[in-house]
Amino acid sequence: MKRTSVAIIGGGVIGGGWAARFLLNGWDVRVYDPASQAKRKVKEVIENARLSMPATLDVAPGPEGNLEFSPTIEQAVAGVDWVQESVPEVKDLKHQVLADIQAHASTHAVIASSTSGFTPTQLREDATVPRQIIVAHPFNPVYLLPVVELVGTDASETLDKARRTLESIGMKPVVIRKEIDAHVADRLLEAVWREALWLVNDDVATTQEIDDIIRYGFGLRWAQMGLFETYRLAGGEEGMAHFIRQFGPALAWPWTKLMDVPELTDELIDKIASQSDAQSGAYSIRELERIRDRNLVAILRALKERHWGAGEVLAQHDERVRNRVSVDKVADVASDRPLRMLDFDVLPAWIDYNGHMTEFRYLQVFGDTSDRLLQMVGVNGDYVAGGRSYYTVETHIQHHDEAKLGQRLYSTTQLIHVDEKRLHVFHCIYRAHDDVLVANAEQMLLHVDSEAGSVCAAGAEVLAHLKRIHAQHTVLDVPQGVGRFVGQKRG
Amino acid sequence: MKRTSVAIIGGGVIGGGWAARFLLNGWDVRVYDPASQAKRKVKEVIENARLSMPATLDVAPGPEGNLEFSPTIEQAVAGVDWVQESVPEVKDLKHQVLADIQAHASTHAVIASSTSGFTPTQLREDATVPRQIIVAHPFNPVYLLPVVELVGTDASETLDKARRTLESIGMKPVVIRKEIDAHVADRLLEAVWREALWLVNDDVATTQEIDDIIRYGFGLRWAQMGLFETYRLAGGEEGMAHFIRQFGPALAWPWTKLMDVPELTDELIDKIASQSDAQSGAYSIRELERIRDRNLVAILRALKERHWGAGEVLAQHDERVRNRVSVDKVADVASDRPLRMLDFDVLPAWIDYNGHMTEFRYLQVFGDTSDRLLQMVGVNGDYVAGGRSYYTVETHIQHHDEAKLGQRLYSTTQLIHVDEKRLHVFHCIYRAHDDVLVANAEQMLLHVDSEAGSVCAAGAEVLAHLKRIHAQHTVLDVPQGVGRFVGQKRG
Repeated sequence: MKRTSVAIIGGGVIGGGWAARFLLNGWDVRVYDPASQAKRKVKEVIENARLSMPATLDVAPGPEGNLEFSPTIEQAVAGVDWVQESVPEVKDLKHQVLADIQAHASTHAVIASSTSGFTPTQLREDATVPRQIIVAHPFNPVYLLPVVELVGTDASETLDKARRTLESIGMKPVVIRKEIDAHVADRLLEAVWREALWLVNDDVATTQEIDDIIRYGFGLRWAQMGLFETYRLAGGEEGMAHFIRQFGPALAWPWTKLMDVPELTDELIDKIASQSDAQSGAYSIRELERIRDRNLVAILRALKERHWGAGEVLAQHDERVRNRVSVDKVADVASDRPLRMLDFDVLPAWIDYNGHMTEFRYLQVFGDTSDRLLQMVGVNGDYVAGGRSYYTVETHIQHHDEAKLGQRLYSTTQLIHVDEKRLHVFHCIYRAHDDVLVANAEQMLLHVDSEAGSVCAAGAEVLAHLKRIHAQHTVLDVPQGVGRFVGQKRG
Repeated sequence: MKRTSVAIIGGGVIGGGWAARFLLNGWDVRVYDPASQAKRKVKEVIENARLSMPATLDVAPGPEGNLEFSPTIEQAVAGVDWVQESVPEVKDLKHQVLADIQAHASTHAVIASSTSGFTPTQLREDATVPRQIIVAHPFNPVYLLPVVELVGTDASETLDKARRTLESIGMKPVVIRKEIDAHVADRLLEAVWREALWLVNDDVATTQEIDDIIRYGFGLRWAQMGLFETYRLAGGEEGMAHFIRQFGPALAWPWTKLMDVPELTDELIDKIASQSDAQSGAYSIRELERIRDRNLVAILRALKERHWGAGEVLAQHDERVRNRVSVDKVADVASDRPLRMLDFDVLPAWIDYNGHMTEFRYLQVFGDTSDRLLQMVGVNGDYVAGGRSYYTVETHIQHHDEAKLGQRLYSTTQLIHVDEKRLHVFHCIYRAHDDVLVANAEQMLLHVDSEAGSVCAAGAEVLAHLKRIHAQHTVLDVPQGVGRFVGQKRG
């Protein structure tokens, strides 16, 4: 396969982000930037990308391309498939750089500008081959955020090539229908920015308070649905046109200092309502609400694992709920049946090419079940931070039935053996609607001193909790799956 | 402990959301809404909340409170600790309802309005105890989004009580420093809404395109950092004041149709820069970039598991990366050693709280190794589409050493037994730099007719490939891990 190559002209935060995005997708990258710090800065951005971008993949990333720094634009662009210009937003500078690029690049190359403000028409004013130049406006960090605004509908051939290339490096191109100053995203952002400047200027809120109102509120919604789909839900059962009419009067009220507003004609209302139907009409409001809620839970949980923003609020709330509920959790849950542990749904990403729940997801649930058991008996964050933990050393999984997309499942745990160092458990996963056994896992965990890397005795309190549960489980039959090897005949 | 109770006056999407938020946090809830559909709608919102809100907790939720529907405001508010008013945004109606509430509620109760538009001063015009009334403006869905705008700084006692109560039900109150129309969030939203109306009106973009630009772009950023902290990063090493000055000229450009802008005085620039320092100065730009990137990866992965929005782009990209690497032909790989199968890196998302590769990721690699073997012998997409496949029925994993972040690992396969219906394999995972065995898995796969759901003979060609590899492997020693059960003593 022919190697693909790109020239990055201008190596700031955006240029560096483009370099990383192409490089980690196997493209050879040549960077041109005369600034003395450019090389260091580009390498720092690429280092950030190497730490984060591969974690978005569930397949082995291919090899990186080669990275070079070129001393001139001429050497950078010679023979490349794509030139990305990201120099400062000064029109004369852009013109000069684009002329230099076009003088030396192949006429087959896409020449794309990262400009926030200029239109293709403005960029092409002096161009020898105008339709080779388009706008491809990305968002920081370019190596993680997928969207790119593509502007230049009159250059359909270049645009088609650009769309395919951007998709091939994992991006989401959105073609803007008309050239306007600042395209689409920066118009929305500029509107928020102007309003936010007023709020700070007038001492209504600080930057921190404004940011908190965004990231604990509508910012969470916008990570998964945009403005219109979110408002479609606010309209409830009555729909989008109802929502617009209901909030229409606010357009005449002093709800913002930015007072140039479009007239809310029936025509505009119908246009928005019918575009919204085309966009979201495949789902009912109920379905959209549940999709939104599942997305929000997932985003909140992701932030919670990082103790950041809205996730930190949840982590603190756990503490409050924990203190609210009676202190001895084990007393509440221990019983003479296997413990019921986790209830969960089979998510879309859990499905394999056979249409069933992928095998490693079973172990994910069994692992989470062990974690829940450990939390119940006091092996929590503090315990682990103190240098002690349980490690799984052995697992035997048997599959008995299948689980499919959207099914509710639950897991149970029976303690087989507990001593100072060993914890032998037997987990089951059942389908919730018919209590059919889907899979079971026999696991051996060892208690370790995680710094020394050696087995050691568990804490007295942890052991007491485990023994109390185990004592209750001694009346139960030993499950048939215990002590078996792979391929052993039944009975 | 005394039971706490709340009256919800007005049972729409917002009122229902408040009811759910309080109810699931153990409060007794009385709802008053004379509309015929109110009861059904409130119950639907609570049902949504029951499906999602407990999933944000890592502790057992406490018991729910009691839910009642009251026939009058008087009965709803009698003796409650909190009254939340969420009736339509009509000033006379609000005044009438608030008067009725205040006539019957305890003077110790907080009376909070969900109003988007009115200020406390406007709400209190006819009030008998003005400072009992404040604004507590939440965001839909109230049972998931934490932020609440609290307005009414002159009623400091009511405000303090409100802040503590909202925190106790897992929310994030932000006190607004000055009364203004529409508070803070809706001013920002109204600015975006007005600009978006122009964009649709002028046919620059459809509602879908605008939403995509948000949710594949800056919406992802705003779920974890807000406007100012994000722009602090855009300023890079030069800092916030540099960023504002750099983009200051855009305030004079036609980047939006909303043209009333504050004057960018040195005083305003300094104010923003120093507020930003107070907000984010504890971290360097580098640190903030990495925090942002980890948050974005986590949010993107959360959406990927749901095949939604930016996550769907990632799922599609996996397919592309997978297809980029060509699958070897069986003729090229068969040999008299275990087959070397997959080379891969331990990704950041694969690390558990002990700092090691999470156990289910081992099974992910073992499963991918089986898949690679099956592809090599002709069990490809066409074969599976023809209604036949191999299913894993049993797996025994043994852990021997640890794998850490960024380490390169590889997997191998040895065929233990092959017949028409059964495929018995033994996979190993080794560290690449020292060839140390990290884990192994013994697996039994059965060949199935996937429609009938029963075991059947594999295709002749598939079987021939497998038998050829197995014949070469018969000269190898049977691995020590084969035929063992969990907890069996070594040797």
